[in-house]
Amino acid sequence: MKFQADIDVMPLKELLDPQGKAVTSSMKNIGLEEISDVRIGKHITLMVEAENEASAREKVETACKKLLANQIMENFRVSLAAVE
Amino acid sequence: MKFQADIDVMPLKELLDPQGKAVTSSMKNIGLEEISDVRIGKHITLMVEAENEASAREKVETACKKLLANQIMENFRVSLAAVE
Repeated sequence: MKFQADIDVMPLKELLDPQGKAVTSSMKNIGLEEISDVRIGKHITLMVEAENEASAREKVETACKKLLANQIMENFRVSLAAVE
Repeated sequence: MKFQADIDVMPLKELLDPQGKAVTSSMKNIGLEEISDVRIGKHITLMVEAENEASAREKVETACKKLLANQIMENFRVSLAAVE
């Protein structure tokens, strides 16, 4: 079966996010004072071939741990949907 | 009311995504041949103060169009959740 994975990789809440801070300040400059606490991470989509959802999730989590996320600074969240 | 917005900004399907292509190749090197079609974009979370959800969505879409996404190369998707 083929699955599409949607992965969010975000900086840990405990850490500063300088890119997000800069964007939060910019919101004021474009007249959007109501927007705050901007945090910026990565959104990754990929296709994975696997026998079942559990096996697909295992492969995607391996990919996150080895390649896509730096677990010292980021956490990740995976959601899967069958496409066939 | 306060809303949390979750925004995905992704490269348009019609465009090459060189970062995603590079990561797709790397998957083979770490033994994950089953993973393909990696595409990499941004995931952004922010808080927005607004009278209702429609008004919150309008503010967030303005922020996306003016600052967060480059609509020539990227599309964006917004989801909102009330937090109070």
